[in-house]
Amino acid sequence: MVVLLRIQRNKELEKQLQAQFPNVNFIYIKDKDEIIKYIPDAEVFVTYGEDLTEDVVFEAQKLKWIMVMSAGVEKLPFQLLKERNILVTNVRGIHQIPMAEFVFGYILQYAKKLDVFLKQQSEKVWNKKVPIQEIYGKTLLVVGAGAIGSQISQYGRVFGMKTIGINRSGNKNEAFDETYSKERLNDVLPIADYIVSVLPNTTDTQYIFTKEQFKLMKKEAVFINVGRGNAVKENDLLEALKKDELAHAFLDVFEKEPLPEDHPLWTSEKVTITPHLSALTNMYLPRAYEIFTKNLRIYVNNKKNFINVIDLDRGY
Amino acid sequence: MVVLLRIQRNKELEKQLQAQFPNVNFIYIKDKDEIIKYIPDAEVFVTYGEDLTEDVVFEAQKLKWIMVMSAGVEKLPFQLLKERNILVTNVRGIHQIPMAEFVFGYILQYAKKLDVFLKQQSEKVWNKKVPIQEIYGKTLLVVGAGAIGSQISQYGRVFGMKTIGINRSGNKNEAFDETYSKERLNDVLPIADYIVSVLPNTTDTQYIFTKEQFKLMKKEAVFINVGRGNAVKENDLLEALKKDELAHAFLDVFEKEPLPEDHPLWTSEKVTITPHLSALTNMYLPRAYEIFTKNLRIYVNNKKNFINVIDLDRGY
Repeated sequence: MVVLLRIQRNKELEKQLQAQFPNVNFIYIKDKDEIIKYIPDAEVFVTYGEDLTEDVVFEAQKLKWIMVMSAGVEKLPFQLLKERNILVTNVRGIHQIPMAEFVFGYILQYAKKLDVFLKQQSEKVWNKKVPIQEIYGKTLLVVGAGAIGSQISQYGRVFGMKTIGINRSGNKNEAFDETYSKERLNDVLPIADYIVSVLPNTTDTQYIFTKEQFKLMKKEAVFINVGRGNAVKENDLLEALKKDELAHAFLDVFEKEPLPEDHPLWTSEKVTITPHLSALTNMYLPRAYEIFTKNLRIYVNNKKNFINVIDLDRGY
Repeated sequence: MVVLLRIQRNKELEKQLQAQFPNVNFIYIKDKDEIIKYIPDAEVFVTYGEDLTEDVVFEAQKLKWIMVMSAGVEKLPFQLLKERNILVTNVRGIHQIPMAEFVFGYILQYAKKLDVFLKQQSEKVWNKKVPIQEIYGKTLLVVGAGAIGSQISQYGRVFGMKTIGINRSGNKNEAFDETYSKERLNDVLPIADYIVSVLPNTTDTQYIFTKEQFKLMKKEAVFINVGRGNAVKENDLLEALKKDELAHAFLDVFEKEPLPEDHPLWTSEKVTITPHLSALTNMYLPRAYEIFTKNLRIYVNNKKNFINVIDLDRGY
């Protein structure tokens, strides 16, 4: 059996995998061009999901299972995969700890003005008149109250924040003080101090945040996006920041990635940019391998109860 | 009755105070020079503690109570105050939330390399190859396991850190996974990823951290001092950082404050400096007034069960 892998290399993890599955032929490739060469023989394809075009699937005549080593499966040709009856799984669940930590890095950088102190240090300035804030008692609104959002809320609660979650149904999620359906978003935006989007890229989440939403925010509010860039109309965000309708935005994801060099987001003093890596710690690959290994064991044995199966109709 | 106050001004809080004690004459002064003029008539002196010299106490013939609106009372002339039988109270307890938040601001800035991304943004660089870490699973050692240290541990636990506290007695503190006496410090230093000093300035805490301690740390360790500067021999710390005996230091307090402009700590790339303000949020004054108001109510009534009485023999 051939398993084709186009993911980050790691000698130790690869060695452990081969030892556990001595009869499997693992082929690691680097370039996108190599996919077409090897995919016709592959029964399993391990990928981050961005290289899975329709062309590839047409050539993949033996393909039975795609293991996506990320959470975002939005670029997959769902219809074609469904017709071909190909199993798709992902690594949902390994993102919640690093991403929730990252969000609190953003939040505390803002509240404690750590960027200001870095600047002061570079100028050897001892100035205590910097208005640092507490996050204790503040209201944290998480849009996308799934596993990642719940982890963010759990940290927020211990810091003494009031937490509100928005999910599709509005069904109570115990990780949050309050939960509302997405139709109620505009009602709760005006009371939030920190608004965090962890929305995936689906047709339902396109431009959830436009000028209407930014206008409803407190002028002291901080907006954070660690989900997907399609949820935010960036021009509206920039306009709202200019008008002081909110105070600051921390963005890890963008409408177009990498963020184009001439994009005005880069130079706004009210925007902090990181390059889509809130989940990418040194623990990412070991945790992803752990899920892949468990699923491969299931695949080799009885093909029952795979972890993180994607519903090809819903797209997540 | 005259209450002399030399603290930050706040109209709203002063108005509320006067309304609650209409018969008290509150005199607010700004300059240190004014103390000698007003102190002879004052029965109560509200201060941050730094202006309470022996000269002042000699002139303060009516003084019965000193309300120190900070935690550090190390500069007070304890012997003289004891002879004069003057009550001293402070605002212990109001520092734990802002300081514990600040410490996690430091920790997450380091783990998530937020300083690197600020620099990348200023150069419009989209570079994902920045090795960000998780704090989940790391070991947090808090030296000074009192109220502030316990709060830090509480946050650490929710982030999935193992927490170790060092206190005087080594008596079990439930806020920590493990607690050791200060004599055991050197035994636990080698296993810590983040080492946080919240020690006050007493004769017992002078130079707790010298080259011996830094040498024992992991080379990946991060040292944080938000207590008092006297606990750290700064030259030894700088030397240890140069030798890569530890990775980074975050310092809010120093042997001499303000940190002199020509001090080499300012320019070390492995040192992050903030100007002694980890506790100074916009909530500081309201919380300090709350304790002062409660104690003043007690003072006016029965003078029993004051909050936060300083033991003039122990100095804390």
